[in-house]
Amino acid sequence: MLSLVDLRTRIIAGTLDPAGAIRLAEAAIAARDPGIGAIVSRNPAPAIAGSGPLAGIAVGVKDIIDTADLPTQMGSPIYAGWQPKADAAIVARLRALGAVPLIKTTTSPFASHDPTATVNPRDPGHTPGGSSAGSAAAVAAGMVPLALGTQTGGSVIRPAAFCGVAAIKPSFRLLPTVGVKTFSWALDTVGLFGAGIRDIAQGLSLIADRPALDLDLDVAPQAPRIGLCLQGFADAPDADALAALTRAARAAEAAGARVVDLVLPSPLPEAWACHAIIQDYEARQALAWEYAHHRAQLSPELGAQLDAAQDLVAAQYDAARRSAHRARRVLKDLFGEFDAILTLSAPGRAPASLGTTGDARFNRLWTLMGVPCVTVPVPGDGLPLGVQVVARFGDDGRALAVAGMIERALAA
Amino acid sequence: MLSLVDLRTRIIAGTLDPAGAIRLAEAAIAARDPGIGAIVSRNPAPAIAGSGPLAGIAVGVKDIIDTADLPTQMGSPIYAGWQPKADAAIVARLRALGAVPLIKTTTSPFASHDPTATVNPRDPGHTPGGSSAGSAAAVAAGMVPLALGTQTGGSVIRPAAFCGVAAIKPSFRLLPTVGVKTFSWALDTVGLFGAGIRDIAQGLSLIADRPALDLDLDVAPQAPRIGLCLQGFADAPDADALAALTRAARAAEAAGARVVDLVLPSPLPEAWACHAIIQDYEARQALAWEYAHHRAQLSPELGAQLDAAQDLVAAQYDAARRSAHRARRVLKDLFGEFDAILTLSAPGRAPASLGTTGDARFNRLWTLMGVPCVTVPVPGDGLPLGVQVVARFGDDGRALAVAGMIERALAA
Repeated sequence: MLSLVDLRTRIIAGTLDPAGAIRLAEAAIAARDPGIGAIVSRNPAPAIAGSGPLAGIAVGVKDIIDTADLPTQMGSPIYAGWQPKADAAIVARLRALGAVPLIKTTTSPFASHDPTATVNPRDPGHTPGGSSAGSAAAVAAGMVPLALGTQTGGSVIRPAAFCGVAAIKPSFRLLPTVGVKTFSWALDTVGLFGAGIRDIAQGLSLIADRPALDLDLDVAPQAPRIGLCLQGFADAPDADALAALTRAARAAEAAGARVVDLVLPSPLPEAWACHAIIQDYEARQALAWEYAHHRAQLSPELGAQLDAAQDLVAAQYDAARRSAHRARRVLKDLFGEFDAILTLSAPGRAPASLGTTGDARFNRLWTLMGVPCVTVPVPGDGLPLGVQVVARFGDDGRALAVAGMIERALAA
Repeated sequence: MLSLVDLRTRIIAGTLDPAGAIRLAEAAIAARDPGIGAIVSRNPAPAIAGSGPLAGIAVGVKDIIDTADLPTQMGSPIYAGWQPKADAAIVARLRALGAVPLIKTTTSPFASHDPTATVNPRDPGHTPGGSSAGSAAAVAAGMVPLALGTQTGGSVIRPAAFCGVAAIKPSFRLLPTVGVKTFSWALDTVGLFGAGIRDIAQGLSLIADRPALDLDLDVAPQAPRIGLCLQGFADAPDADALAALTRAARAAEAAGARVVDLVLPSPLPEAWACHAIIQDYEARQALAWEYAHHRAQLSPELGAQLDAAQDLVAAQYDAARRSAHRARRVLKDLFGEFDAILTLSAPGRAPASLGTTGDARFNRLWTLMGVPCVTVPVPGDGLPLGVQVVARFGDDGRALAVAGMIERALAA
């Protein structure tokens, strides 16, 4: 994989220039994408900034995020060839930092569940996950060192875990969603994919303009208190995923963490069960034009989801929002006892199918809570597995620090 | 003015059909708009639904709200002729209810402070206020019975007060902002303008799909507890505005309300002072593409505002958000003692100038708190004055009920 930190180090040292770094990405794209299909469109002659903290960093941009120089097609024939006027706020920010939004990456239609044509770079018979399929696959295949995704249920953490890359879904609205096609405004969160925890920490620090997030990951947190959480309300994971979680917990302990089993109390399981109501009630509104005028062009699962959502009433939505609000308060108190929660990134390895993007059941609660989530690849044989580190709302730095500690402990 | 309730009553009674109701709006537009300039574009041959709860209701749509059949030009030459792909969620909702989005109304550039060319329908030498200038003026001049605006500081309540119409800025995110050009995502709120409180209550009830909001305004709330609040931290209002507020308070008392002076405690004044930091830090991101590529085409005040915003740092923004969070909790407790707060809608009557849109200093706090605000026109001589009724977050019905009580008491 291309590492953002390594590329920046070489550029700062003068052994690589920004144009050379972009050429590395272009060469990898030419070599790898024909077999993977992560890319929807590509800037054939991008302007390459000679300076800036992210100069030379090629970025993959999920194709529900507006770009002024490339179409934004939402993974849907309804938006075939659609050219937005402006860059999304996050894309404008990347350009201001010197980065090159080089490719638009595949997305499930409107970031829903229906699969894309992208395959898992580790095995083309398996899904890369979704909805940010192309962004996860492009980073995993070494095409770009940084990619943008969005998560409404588990669309950043799950594909990252399936493809064996690091990713962060930051605290809700740490990164701007202006110019990102909305599925659910209370949930949609822009996230980052990178080769490792250092890469996403440094990327997030620069993009969010919060220097404190660029942690010195070589300095481990002092004996962090970690709650090991199976999210039993979300049903059992596969044995492989459970084994990876246990391994990560033991590695963290060996590195000095205090790991305690954590069963999430009421009203957190109840809030988890409310996620779909909030998501679907808002999606019905956000995609009302598409539903009213282009129902036949909606992908099968999304069409059925919106059909069902027409029956939701405001009282159900209001009750679900109150449930989520109560759960956020309880979770905040829980983080008085724990620095981080360690849990599953996905129920297992990437399914052996291109007809599904997998299951977000271990991700939904955290998206609804708005808390930062980081997935750490767990080294091993076969298709990748990841574990998920969750921290208190607004404390993205702690999620990254604990994730970095676990990444290092697993490598040891 | 055209009353939404009256038009619906006539349509339901069969004495007016939807097409006839739209013709009333079209005739008023032809007669009044040449002298007012509230309209940016108009659908010359709209499809008119024969049925639906808002059939026959012509709507004015602020020109930062996307429409699939009319350009959306943001009040800015940067977006001259720009045709979005889809309807904004709120526009799709209006069409689903049978309403006709007939006109796009003038807006300050990107809903900022710089004035539009629209004049106040009550006196063409005076501003109609902003940024939702055209929507307020179009309703005041009887061109449409319903119009959409947005408020980031005071862009719904203030122009409504200046033009002598009723308006509501609902609880934050009661109405969807998908497809609305963002200025500040933590603040931007879609609001409604109408002839009177009954009209906006019935409109909001239907659009938000919350039947309980369609109050029987002929039944006054039982002895509501009203906090009379001068917002001293925002400096003194004009004598006229103060007199109107006092009159409204005395009328409410005469109608049975218990009115008590309320001085807002810390940290509410501190939060008020933080509004601009949150707004400008987000606007810098939301308008980053426009600023990077079209700085010279930005209007003078907005350009200067974004220049200054480049110096804001994340720590200021994060501190401002924490301040707002603390204030919301204190305000929530305050609403245990009061059913509503009665305060100023604006510092005075519409200024005698087309070079300003007036001052939002009596509106900012409530937008930041996310609470529902309703402005009630105060009958009298000269240019209009309004008073503002504020209620607890999520209790838009109570804000409307108390506003309706005051409207009736003032008419008595």
